[in-house]
Amino acid sequence: MYAKFATRMDNIKGSAIRALLKLADQPDIISFAGGFPAPEFFPVKEMELVSKKVLEEDGMAALQYGPTDGLPALRKHICKLMEPQHIKADISEILVTGGSQQGLDMAGMLFIDKGDVVITESPSYLGALNAFKAYEPVFVEIEMDEEGMLIDKLEEALEANKGKVKFIYTIPDFQNPTGRTMAIDRRKKMVELANKYGVYILEDNPYGSLRFEGEIHPAIKSFDTEGRVIYLGTMSKIFCPGLRLGWIYGSPEVINKFNLIKQGVDLQCNSMAQRECATFFDMYDINAHIAKIVETYRNRRDLMIKTIKETFPKGVSYTHPEGGLFLWVTLPEGIDSKDVFEKALEKKVAFVAGEPFYPNGGNANHFRLNYSNMPEDKIVEGTKRLGELLTEMLG
Amino acid sequence: MYAKFATRMDNIKGSAIRALLKLADQPDIISFAGGFPAPEFFPVKEMELVSKKVLEEDGMAALQYGPTDGLPALRKHICKLMEPQHIKADISEILVTGGSQQGLDMAGMLFIDKGDVVITESPSYLGALNAFKAYEPVFVEIEMDEEGMLIDKLEEALEANKGKVKFIYTIPDFQNPTGRTMAIDRRKKMVELANKYGVYILEDNPYGSLRFEGEIHPAIKSFDTEGRVIYLGTMSKIFCPGLRLGWIYGSPEVINKFNLIKQGVDLQCNSMAQRECATFFDMYDINAHIAKIVETYRNRRDLMIKTIKETFPKGVSYTHPEGGLFLWVTLPEGIDSKDVFEKALEKKVAFVAGEPFYPNGGNANHFRLNYSNMPEDKIVEGTKRLGELLTEMLG
Repeated sequence: MYAKFATRMDNIKGSAIRALLKLADQPDIISFAGGFPAPEFFPVKEMELVSKKVLEEDGMAALQYGPTDGLPALRKHICKLMEPQHIKADISEILVTGGSQQGLDMAGMLFIDKGDVVITESPSYLGALNAFKAYEPVFVEIEMDEEGMLIDKLEEALEANKGKVKFIYTIPDFQNPTGRTMAIDRRKKMVELANKYGVYILEDNPYGSLRFEGEIHPAIKSFDTEGRVIYLGTMSKIFCPGLRLGWIYGSPEVINKFNLIKQGVDLQCNSMAQRECATFFDMYDINAHIAKIVETYRNRRDLMIKTIKETFPKGVSYTHPEGGLFLWVTLPEGIDSKDVFEKALEKKVAFVAGEPFYPNGGNANHFRLNYSNMPEDKIVEGTKRLGELLTEMLG
Repeated sequence: MYAKFATRMDNIKGSAIRALLKLADQPDIISFAGGFPAPEFFPVKEMELVSKKVLEEDGMAALQYGPTDGLPALRKHICKLMEPQHIKADISEILVTGGSQQGLDMAGMLFIDKGDVVITESPSYLGALNAFKAYEPVFVEIEMDEEGMLIDKLEEALEANKGKVKFIYTIPDFQNPTGRTMAIDRRKKMVELANKYGVYILEDNPYGSLRFEGEIHPAIKSFDTEGRVIYLGTMSKIFCPGLRLGWIYGSPEVINKFNLIKQGVDLQCNSMAQRECATFFDMYDINAHIAKIVETYRNRRDLMIKTIKETFPKGVSYTHPEGGLFLWVTLPEGIDSKDVFEKALEKKVAFVAGEPFYPNGGNANHFRLNYSNMPEDKIVEGTKRLGELLTEMLG
C-alpha cells in the first residue's frame, strides 16, 4: 500500500506551545508558556463602538468578500505604524495576512523546494520552523550572541551552501525565544551578504514596537537596496491577536507573488476585522495604547528578572531583553529542561522547554519564559517556585 | 543563477475570477462573474446586536488567541447545520477554517506529493484547482452528465492510475461551475470505489443548503464507512463571506492532521468572528435566514433561464440548476468564450469564461453565469444583452 498522506506530513509535528495552551487554560496554573498578550489591555469597550460604527457605516461591505491584498485604509495605517522603524512603505507593497503566522507559511510556499536551505538563528521561533517544515527544507542554524546572529558564521554558511540557500529567517527585535536584539551594524551587513549571495531575508518583526528602553533599531528592511528583504508584521502583540491580522511588506514583485498564493490559501482576510482595525486606528491613538502595554511589560520583565536574581541558583544564566515578551534561561549542560518542565507542572508553573526552538534538535538545557500574560503577583510567585525547583534540582 | 522561487510558483496563476472582481466593482457593469452572495441579505442590524453581546459578555476572549480547532459553541452549530444532509457529526470531528478555500489548500498540503494524481470533475471549481496546483499534482478529469461524474469513467481512471491517486475532488450539490447535482446512487458508488482503491474523497459542499426544488440529496459523507470522506463546508453562501469561516468535517485521524497543518498556516481563525457567528446562530433562526436567500436565488435563476430561453440563439445550451449560484452555458464547438467575454464587456456585462475550470485546459466553448449577486432587473437586462451578442456572433 502506498502512503496515504504527503511525505511532508512526516515533518509536521504539533507545536509544543499550542499543546500547552490547554494547560495554561487551567486557572490554577501560572503560565509563562504561551506568547499571549495581556488581555486586560484589549480595548473591549472601544471595540464595541468601533464595531457599531463599521456595521452602521459600511455593513454590507464588512460582511461581503473583498480584495485579496486587503483593505486600503488598513494598509495605510500599517505603513504609518512601521515609520518609527525607519520604514517608508507604500500601500502597494503591503499584503494583509492572517497574523504573521500566515506570512511564514506563505514564505515557505513561495521559496522552498524540498531540500532547499533555510538559514535561521539558533534557536529560532518554533512556529516558523513548523510552518517551513511543511515545505521540506534543510535548516542551517547560525550561532547567536547577545547582539544576534554571528555575522561571520552567517557568511561561512552562505558560502558553504552557495546556490542552495533560499532565505535567511531572522527575528531581529527581542527575538523569540531569546529576547535578544540584532545590532545595527549586523543588520546592514546581513543585507550586504544577501545581495552578494543572491538570497532573500525574511525579517519577522512582531515585537519591534514593544521597546522598554534603549534606542529603536532601524528594521533590516530599511537597509534593503535590492528588494531582498521581506518584512512580516502583526497586530497580535500591539492590538488584538484574536482578530488574526498581520501583514507582509515587500517589493511589488514579491507582493504580487504573495497575492497569488493568498488567493489559493484563503482568498482574503476577514473583511469586518480589517475595517474594525482600521477604524480603531482612526478613532484612537495606537501609540498611546502601545505605550501602556510597554509600561506594563517593562514592569513585568523587571519583576521577573528581580525574582530570578533572588531565587535562581548559580550556574543558571538568562537574557535581559530590552523589549518584547520573552526571556531565555540557560541551565548547566546536561540538564534537560523537559525534566524541569515536568517538575514545574507539579508546582503549577508552565513554560516552554528549549529543544523545539532548535531546528535540528539538541540544546535541551534551555527554556523560554514569557512575562507578558501573567499579572505581577503571579510573575513573582511563579518565578519564585521555579527558583526553588531549580535550587532543589541543581543545589 | 538558481531559481529564486519554488518550482510550484510556475503553476500558481492568478484566479480569473479574482481578476474580474475589479471589473465587477464598477457600478455600471452587470456582473454574472463572481460567486458573491446577495449582500442585501447580510444581517447587518442583527450583527450589530451580536457584536455588542459578544464584546460585552466575552470581550477579552473574543480578542485573544484561542484553540486551533475552533470555538466549541460554533462547532456545535456546524454539526446541527449539516443534519439535513443526513450527517451526524460530533464536534471532535470538526475543524474551523478560513472559509472552505482554506480547507482546499490544507487538503492539498495533507495529501499531495509532486506528481500524485487528483481526480476532479470536468469542469471543476477553479479556486480549488489553483489551491491544489501549489502542491504540483497531476489532474485526471472525469466527464460529467446532468447527474454528475460518470461513475464508469471514474472507475476506469482509478484503475488506470492505481497507486497514484490521492483523492477524488467533487462538488456534489449544484456544482461550481455547472450547477449540476450528483445522483444519490452515484454518491454511494463513489464511496465504494474509494474504499476499493484506498483513496480519499474531498466533498466540497458550499451550496448544499441552497436547494430551490426537489429533494435533499444525502451528503457523500453520509455514506462513508471507512473515514475516507472529508467534507468541506462554509458560512460564506448561507451567512457572511466577509467573516471567512468554513469548516472541515472528517475522521478524528484526519482532523488531527488538519489541526497540525492549521497550527503552521495561521494558528486559528478569528476568535471574535467565531463568537459572532455562534451567537448569531443562538439568537436567530438560520434556517429562516437560508429560506429567504433560497427564495430570492430561485427567483433570480428563473428570471435568468426565462431570459436565456427568450433571447439566446439556437445551438447554445445551458444547465438547469436545482440550487446554488451558477449555471453553465455551452456554445457550439469552435466558439471561444473569451471572445464572447471581450465583446460582452463592451456591452457592460461580465461572466467567467470556461477554460480555467478545466484543470488540463481546452473546452473554450463554455462559460459560467452567476445569478445570486445581481438584482432582478439587472439579471434580465444583462442576460438579454448576452442573448443579443450571441445572436450577432452566431446568427
